[in-house]
Amino acid sequence: MSAGLILALPRGRILAEVMPLLRRAGIEPEPAFEDPDSRRLRFSTSEPLLELIRVRSFDVATFVAFGAAELGIAGNDVLMEFDFSEIYAPLDLDIGHCRLMVAARAEAAEPEDPRRWSHVRVATKYPEATRRHFARKGVQAECIKLNGAIELAPRLGLCRHIVDLVDTGETLRANGLVEIEEIARVSARLIVNRPALKTRPEEIGCWIERFRRAVGAPRG
Amino acid sequence: MSAGLILALPRGRILAEVMPLLRRAGIEPEPAFEDPDSRRLRFSTSEPLLELIRVRSFDVATFVAFGAAELGIAGNDVLMEFDFSEIYAPLDLDIGHCRLMVAARAEAAEPEDPRRWSHVRVATKYPEATRRHFARKGVQAECIKLNGAIELAPRLGLCRHIVDLVDTGETLRANGLVEIEEIARVSARLIVNRPALKTRPEEIGCWIERFRRAVGAPRG
Repeated sequence: MSAGLILALPRGRILAEVMPLLRRAGIEPEPAFEDPDSRRLRFSTSEPLLELIRVRSFDVATFVAFGAAELGIAGNDVLMEFDFSEIYAPLDLDIGHCRLMVAARAEAAEPEDPRRWSHVRVATKYPEATRRHFARKGVQAECIKLNGAIELAPRLGLCRHIVDLVDTGETLRANGLVEIEEIARVSARLIVNRPALKTRPEEIGCWIERFRRAVGAPRG
Repeated sequence: MSAGLILALPRGRILAEVMPLLRRAGIEPEPAFEDPDSRRLRFSTSEPLLELIRVRSFDVATFVAFGAAELGIAGNDVLMEFDFSEIYAPLDLDIGHCRLMVAARAEAAEPEDPRRWSHVRVATKYPEATRRHFARKGVQAECIKLNGAIELAPRLGLCRHIVDLVDTGETLRANGLVEIEEIARVSARLIVNRPALKTRPEEIGCWIERFRRAVGAPRG
């Protein structure tokens, strides 16, 4: 445990959008943080009382929910999937924009009308969010959890539908899939462990405020 | 769907051990397969009736279990976690050797005697295998599922124990963790979709035999 605070950041492409925001919030990570080949997981910053960890996007939410990190950056797709009551998401960071979509094979025999489905088999990284989405429409979704390469599944006959993040839609098109329905607009949020916010309101409140100003500040 | 067969291979470091074995089995993937930057997921091979897909190790088992790939290569760690009845694992490929271990913080106050635990909180990629392992000893394991960076969890106070794959033990030591107990010796297996083996016994039986000879052949 640290006397300071820990901010959990997601690995991967989203970091390119996170870094400028961190800097506008006055956080300069130690140089090793931006080395994609580094196997280190924990890093100091220009702020003596703030350390960073770099973990997978789903794990950001888990570390924050259990209080192993007080702060984190996670998409609302991840928050929807876990629905952790211990996570408070006070701030939309206006980065990492994409959409959580239902998609299906373009060559589907009949026109797709989601209101007609009573049962659907879906490959997805988001089984909980998917089940809830379809349940609200009275449709039972049999979800096959995949950790990646979701767009392969329909071509290989695993299912007709997928639920996945879509940015430009290029990956869908390259795999013969079309967008059917939007489940949610996604962007990255600043997230906070609720119990930590209660016991350390000034330190954490200060960081929320710094990120709020960073989001509003001119970019570039 | 393909008239041929699909072999699902795991992404990542294990591929360095898989490739020589593939070649000894007479399979030469198209060049793009070995390009780590390629975003393609499906590849042809020197065998007109065999295609490859490259997916995450857990997803290899899912694709094979649902018959989206007839063949796959997966560690018995993955097979233990899923326990899919549709997967038949006829052949140990003698690569990807490591161990599925319980580990804990080195500075644990008391000497660790697993027989004394009644409840344990464990961070792991393998919640099902972990629960079953501890249940066999009468211990209730509360598992926190993480997708990576498991070794960070004890240091950050998430838990005292982890269950993770261990190769040399260097990552454990670097994070102040010690090995407590071995759950299983792990190696990669050739896996087969059982219904496909029943409907296409000759084609699939031929591949099992080719891999069997490749495992026995001199290396290098």
